[in-house]
Amino acid sequence: MPKSKIGVGVLGATGTVGQRFIQLLAKHPWFEVVWVAASERSEGLTYAEAVRWRMKTPILAQVANLRMAEAGNPTGAPKIIFAALDASIAAELEPRYAEAGCIVVTNSSALRMNEDVPLVIPEVNPEHLGLIPHQSWRKQGGMVVTNPNCSAIGLVMALAPLHQAFGLEKVMAVTMQAVSGAGYPGVASLDILGNVIPYIPNEEEKMEAETRKLLGHFDGARVVPAEFAVSAQCNRVPVEDGHTESCSVKLARTAGTEEILAAWRDFHPLPQRLKLPSAPERPIIYHSACDRPQQRLDLEHGAGMSVSIGRLRPCGVLDWKFTVLSHNTIRGAAGAALLNAELMMAQGYLNQLSNLEIE
Amino acid sequence: MPKSKIGVGVLGATGTVGQRFIQLLAKHPWFEVVWVAASERSEGLTYAEAVRWRMKTPILAQVANLRMAEAGNPTGAPKIIFAALDASIAAELEPRYAEAGCIVVTNSSALRMNEDVPLVIPEVNPEHLGLIPHQSWRKQGGMVVTNPNCSAIGLVMALAPLHQAFGLEKVMAVTMQAVSGAGYPGVASLDILGNVIPYIPNEEEKMEAETRKLLGHFDGARVVPAEFAVSAQCNRVPVEDGHTESCSVKLARTAGTEEILAAWRDFHPLPQRLKLPSAPERPIIYHSACDRPQQRLDLEHGAGMSVSIGRLRPCGVLDWKFTVLSHNTIRGAAGAALLNAELMMAQGYLNQLSNLEIE
Amino acid sequence: MPKSKIGVGVLGATGTVGQRFIQLLAKHPWFEVVWVAASERSEGLTYAEAVRWRMKTPILAQVANLRMAEAGNPTGAPKIIFAALDASIAAELEPRYAEAGCIVVTNSSALRMNEDVPLVIPEVNPEHLGLIPHQSWRKQGGMVVTNPNCSAIGLVMALAPLHQAFGLEKVMAVTMQAVSGAGYPGVASLDILGNVIPYIPNEEEKMEAETRKLLGHFDGARVVPAEFAVSAQCNRVPVEDGHTESCSVKLARTAGTEEILAAWRDFHPLPQRLKLPSAPERPIIYHSACDRPQQRLDLEHGAGMSVSIGRLRPCGVLDWKFTVLSHNTIRGAAGAALLNAELMMAQGYLNQLSNLEIE
Amino acid sequence: MPKSKIGVGVLGATGTVGQRFIQLLAKHPWFEVVWVAASERSEGLTYAEAVRWRMKTPILAQVANLRMAEAGNPTGAPKIIFAALDASIAAELEPRYAEAGCIVVTNSSALRMNEDVPLVIPEVNPEHLGLIPHQSWRKQGGMVVTNPNCSAIGLVMALAPLHQAFGLEKVMAVTMQAVSGAGYPGVASLDILGNVIPYIPNEEEKMEAETRKLLGHFDGARVVPAEFAVSAQCNRVPVEDGHTESCSVKLARTAGTEEILAAWRDFHPLPQRLKLPSAPERPIIYHSACDRPQQRLDLEHGAGMSVSIGRLRPCGVLDWKFTVLSHNTIRGAAGAALLNAELMMAQGYLNQLSNLEIE
Repeated sequence: MPKSKIGVGVLGATGTVGQRFIQLLAKHPWFEVVWVAASERSEGLTYAEAVRWRMKTPILAQVANLRMAEAGNPTGAPKIIFAALDASIAAELEPRYAEAGCIVVTNSSALRMNEDVPLVIPEVNPEHLGLIPHQSWRKQGGMVVTNPNCSAIGLVMALAPLHQAFGLEKVMAVTMQAVSGAGYPGVASLDILGNVIPYIPNEEEKMEAETRKLLGHFDGARVVPAEFAVSAQCNRVPVEDGHTESCSVKLARTAGTEEILAAWRDFHPLPQRLKLPSAPERPIIYHSACDRPQQRLDLEHGAGMSVSIGRLRPCGVLDWKFTVLSHNTIRGAAGAALLNAELMMAQGYLNQLSNLEIE
Repeated sequence: MPKSKIGVGVLGATGTVGQRFIQLLAKHPWFEVVWVAASERSEGLTYAEAVRWRMKTPILAQVANLRMAEAGNPTGAPKIIFAALDASIAAELEPRYAEAGCIVVTNSSALRMNEDVPLVIPEVNPEHLGLIPHQSWRKQGGMVVTNPNCSAIGLVMALAPLHQAFGLEKVMAVTMQAVSGAGYPGVASLDILGNVIPYIPNEEEKMEAETRKLLGHFDGARVVPAEFAVSAQCNRVPVEDGHTESCSVKLARTAGTEEILAAWRDFHPLPQRLKLPSAPERPIIYHSACDRPQQRLDLEHGAGMSVSIGRLRPCGVLDWKFTVLSHNTIRGAAGAALLNAELMMAQGYLNQLSNLEIE
Repeated sequence: MPKSKIGVGVLGATGTVGQRFIQLLAKHPWFEVVWVAASERSEGLTYAEAVRWRMKTPILAQVANLRMAEAGNPTGAPKIIFAALDASIAAELEPRYAEAGCIVVTNSSALRMNEDVPLVIPEVNPEHLGLIPHQSWRKQGGMVVTNPNCSAIGLVMALAPLHQAFGLEKVMAVTMQAVSGAGYPGVASLDILGNVIPYIPNEEEKMEAETRKLLGHFDGARVVPAEFAVSAQCNRVPVEDGHTESCSVKLARTAGTEEILAAWRDFHPLPQRLKLPSAPERPIIYHSACDRPQQRLDLEHGAGMSVSIGRLRPCGVLDWKFTVLSHNTIRGAAGAALLNAELMMAQGYLNQLSNLEIE
Repeated sequence: MPKSKIGVGVLGATGTVGQRFIQLLAKHPWFEVVWVAASERSEGLTYAEAVRWRMKTPILAQVANLRMAEAGNPTGAPKIIFAALDASIAAELEPRYAEAGCIVVTNSSALRMNEDVPLVIPEVNPEHLGLIPHQSWRKQGGMVVTNPNCSAIGLVMALAPLHQAFGLEKVMAVTMQAVSGAGYPGVASLDILGNVIPYIPNEEEKMEAETRKLLGHFDGARVVPAEFAVSAQCNRVPVEDGHTESCSVKLARTAGTEEILAAWRDFHPLPQRLKLPSAPERPIIYHSACDRPQQRLDLEHGAGMSVSIGRLRPCGVLDWKFTVLSHNTIRGAAGAALLNAELMMAQGYLNQLSNLEIE
């Protein structure tokens, strides 16, 4: 859409999600990485020297040679910043960048639940971007937009069409989460080889609160969280990539199998209509085979941005149960932020960029 | 308890569960294996020749040298038979052995839901053995007693004290099951390395039906299944041994954390009071650490017969949620049948054995 | 190169390697799949119905709808056949297809060591195609060309430049092989989760004999195997894709680190000069980081056709040791056969095809 | 042997090897843990509070309640110390404890190659304890004895009978090592799930040097390393416990299959003759099945102290090749040190202990 590529920065560029940003941005039609920052330790090194690269594709040469900036200092940062900092650091630095006039599109959980910060999945609640004008950072020209936790995003993609069509009353989700969700070094191999860890710190709380905010109503001034009950149980399993979730829902209005499948099949939301570059042609793919979705087979649909669903069947306690799978570091992290930025571009939130003209 | 060891047979002795029977019986104080049978293919071989042994301890020498009998023919079989046949074969052969006067203590699912066949966990519903006199096979001196599915047994052990103390209204369970539950060769490595398979054939149906039967009421003539709602979702994960289950329950009567923990802690059922050889001192172990139970740490408590529970916390949809772990091939299969036989011995169901006197 | 795509067949199309053929051919510039065959069991089904598809990309629609032929019968098969049958079946069927006039480009081991059958890696010994005119099947217009075992191919790619530059005297290789090399269902998960199996049937014999034949001399009439000693030890490890090999070599002529690295770096063989579609730009990639190559990072270079080497260092027993990694089902199987067919096309062996003109 | 148990200390008691010491000593007939030390951080906590316990058996109650000492300070430490410190810390602290009069039996690599420090496997080179009187620490009553690296110990156990019977000329070994060898947290799960890492820092150097020292000749004053060539290649694989090694050897004297098998079978060394408590009845177990030894089946023989060998066959480059498996944290670490201490006790090196009488 822009006439020439827009230079962007990546904050926390050496971590797992940071690397995924660098990888996905390497072939992005609108954005190009011109600035990378991480902790003081790597300041002055080139990106290639500073990073312990864990992606399967090589680092783009022009990014490999970028000099690392120090994350604590926004001076010299470009206007648009993709952020992948640890939550505790993000809580301090993201507002600092916004105050310095940056547009911070972040995967961190730090500000997600802030009243004036939009928590957005472009397919689900693009209208929540309407919170932006209420942010205090607008005075300096900055803003912050967040995407949800990797475990919430697959669930909410599956729930959104159901909530819209039938209304949700109760939601239960049990996750089986991949180790890449814990960053690097993350989970010790001795803790996970041949093992299930039935606990991920703060994950259940995030899933429950974010799900309600994402499916909440934006009344022009604030987001009123959805009122349905959500209960999450989060487990870590010995899988590299891809979060599987066993879900049950109770609907406000009775619906049959065909109606539910139709709700998913006919889900054709804004990013797909806008043909945003990272929007998968099919945001939701329903698999009719009885043993799907699986990481081995279904993780790379839509370049990791499609959410796979399977096993829709009646639930003896709530109404329906089904399984959801999503790619936790693409759809659930870096790809989510990228799609948010694309939506912001399409909706004019990045208009103020001097080097940019929307065609 | 018996003056000399009682000779028993193992039907389906070469499979995964059959091998576990042979292993556990090797050191049993009451029983000793004198007869082994499997399919026609291995007839006439010694057990050592016929089996592809996958246990970590060596085969007991006297069992290694037993000649394999052909499973189809009960002639020459001892009175007590531990059975570990595939369900489809068991449906035909278990009645045949019972008709021939054998006491069949089986892990197979074939007859579990039959009206006159007790489905028993000795800690939970020992009184269901009262169904035995109603079995048609009594005329020939035979009987059949079953233990539940490996995924039902951990759940029901955790539920039983709650049902007794507070009443259950709704139960949801999502399982993460080990590959050893599928037998050998079982799950292909290409299907499970780095993968979750969200489907196990017939497993959810078994869990739901068996849970209600196990917690049902024996009225002297038949078992009336418990009436609470159960919903199960079963997943296979890349773990060798041990099924983890994320559970939620709604109770009939309000209970606080302390009351629930006390119900589990004070659970001191019949097998423990009778000091049956395979009964673990602590049938239920509650772990207070936030990331327990885990296969790596908690699978071998009580020699694989204790059930581990952890993470009790309120549930936003039902009342309480918690995690259960049990050893699927010990507590969930061969050990379960062994404990059933011990209970039957202690309660006099094996009295007719000529070579046995209970002290 | 051809004006329109050439229709080809895949024999054994439903197996693991067969599926990889279908996947790789889906985007091939010269060939398109018009015929698929497997065992009698699937005759008459569509390919989509017959296959248990395990690839990460979907089946090409036009292939999904092809009707399965019965592998035993060459009638109706196209001229060019890619074959992925089990060795025991291949031994019977591949000659039958060649006798029926087909050009059989096969991954099977059945005929690899036959005197008049070329065993070819296009980067290493393209001149061995000169054996073709000596094949008895030429009378009927047929021929058979084979590619090596998945464990031999990475090793020989690494050895070829050394053999050419310095001469090889002794070669030792210990493999750590992925489960996908065993096909489907292949290795049982209970045998490989958390385990190393130090044995793969016939694998060591194949590696040793094939290495010598591949690096042997074609004297215009036959291939004289290379004379150096080779010793292989083959292990199966819990890895999905990618064979790692720890290698040691003794050279005929003394060489230093720089010379050896140069031999690999300057390896620019025929397929790359011909720009064959499946030839990776860099057939050998040397990684200087001390802990490379690794499956996680280095398996997809050159779309799975590059061979990765690392850790060159002196050996206390022979002269040099190093580690090799190659993708066992792409470079080591289906991709290998495809590259063979491309070489055959470029060298005129497929000229007789009526529907083909080489530009 | 001693009339009452001897109180011992464990230095580095909270690490992976330290925990294994605590676990193995819990049931030791001669020793009991009365003192535990680790870094300053845990000083004053009880052991149960300080440790992140990862063993499958619970902590012995009396050890759980011990107060942690600070490792830097030997004051108050008991005479006998089992040490499991990181090498860099051990280099400083082990001499400090020896100077303070302690008998340090250590698993650390820090002092292994010191001229006057015995590097001992009791089955292989018990006479190397003769170095002890040459240690400078004898003046203060202290001494240090080490055991080899976890990857050297299995290899050397297999080599010792061959070296004695036939003489070794060349040895090559390629290891596939379990993650538990790297301690905790050790290897990141993202680095090892579905992956092989062809590098372990310093491991190859240790294996090569230690193998020669262990099989060296003690001439009464010093150990002259064995002169044969050794070349090691070390890989990390996704296995929890147990190092597999593919080995090749060249012998000084020709030997046939039967002679080699006899050398292993007839290996009945000192610890077994002395019936030391941790000495396995069969120090070496040869498995004749073609696919053994394996972690899943062969790791727990001799309570983890037996070394398993299999696949003896001719090598095309050296003379013979075979596979070795040993338990890396029992035979390869804590169990090794324990057996060293038992040997020292039996040979009178611990005589000076006031509370001890050898019967």
